[in-house]
Amino acid sequence: MDTHTGRPATGTGTDTDADRRGPIWDMITGRLPPSPAAATLGWQLVAVDPEQGTIEVAFEAGEQFTNPVGVVQGGFLAAMLDDTMGPALVLTLPAGQFAPTLDLQVQFLRPARPGRLVGRGRVVRRGREVCFLAGELTGPDGRLVATATATAYIQPIRR
Amino acid sequence: MDTHTGRPATGTGTDTDADRRGPIWDMITGRLPPSPAAATLGWQLVAVDPEQGTIEVAFEAGEQFTNPVGVVQGGFLAAMLDDTMGPALVLTLPAGQFAPTLDLQVQFLRPARPGRLVGRGRVVRRGREVCFLAGELTGPDGRLVATATATAYIQPIRR
Repeated sequence: MDTHTGRPATGTGTDTDADRRGPIWDMITGRLPPSPAAATLGWQLVAVDPEQGTIEVAFEAGEQFTNPVGVVQGGFLAAMLDDTMGPALVLTLPAGQFAPTLDLQVQFLRPARPGRLVGRGRVVRRGREVCFLAGELTGPDGRLVATATATAYIQPIRR
Repeated sequence: MDTHTGRPATGTGTDTDADRRGPIWDMITGRLPPSPAAATLGWQLVAVDPEQGTIEVAFEAGEQFTNPVGVVQGGFLAAMLDDTMGPALVLTLPAGQFAPTLDLQVQFLRPARPGRLVGRGRVVRRGREVCFLAGELTGPDGRLVATATATAYIQPIRR
């Protein structure tokens, strides 16, 4: 977050937010609310760098995501990582394109308690259609709780 | 579901539900409510066979799980698969043991619309501590929407 303006920090490229298009930018600029899935996860943009293909987001892991022993069920951490890596790619796309996740691999390093979790995602390789992504999720103490990789496939939005 | 008794169908082993212990059985018999994560996903047991290490569950994928193009965000399908495979193993454990997921791999075969999804999970190999699991998720038309594998690790419950 850019603490001066209170707006999400963006990269050092010459484009401004207003020049960009697409669902993620519409969410950033407030033209669209976050997707229902993102809202359910307490998704919040912290910083983006489209030139580098990186993003930092925060989530609010509520008690409603916990398993029988009181820690966040791994699947919800997977959902957060999906909603970290996907946007890292989508923010590089022009309007009218979307990039569904084809596969997702998650490693659960430590138990995560309910609270604020920070996700960092990056585009490892962006092909014309097939893209490889990576991400990680850290807890309030800054320690990694999960890491992930994913493959996504760029395609036109069909409604 | 056993349509005669209205209770979840169980395998052909000689044990009865009342002989079994552990969080999943407590959920089945109504001694405990479903975990918060399971409730959030609309988790419902359909059938179990502890001898075979298989389970069939149903989920209610709500609108709150959808992504910007209106289909269920893949991460929530991953959460459902985690809550399919995990219970397949946990239902074979004695009281006082739990089996956190170490890693999770998901393949997204088709888009899933909000609605009822059915998960089938099985224990592929149960070691003393390390267990390999597999699962799949089908849509209302019976077509596969996602498949998954996972590794879980049996350990005592520490509170």
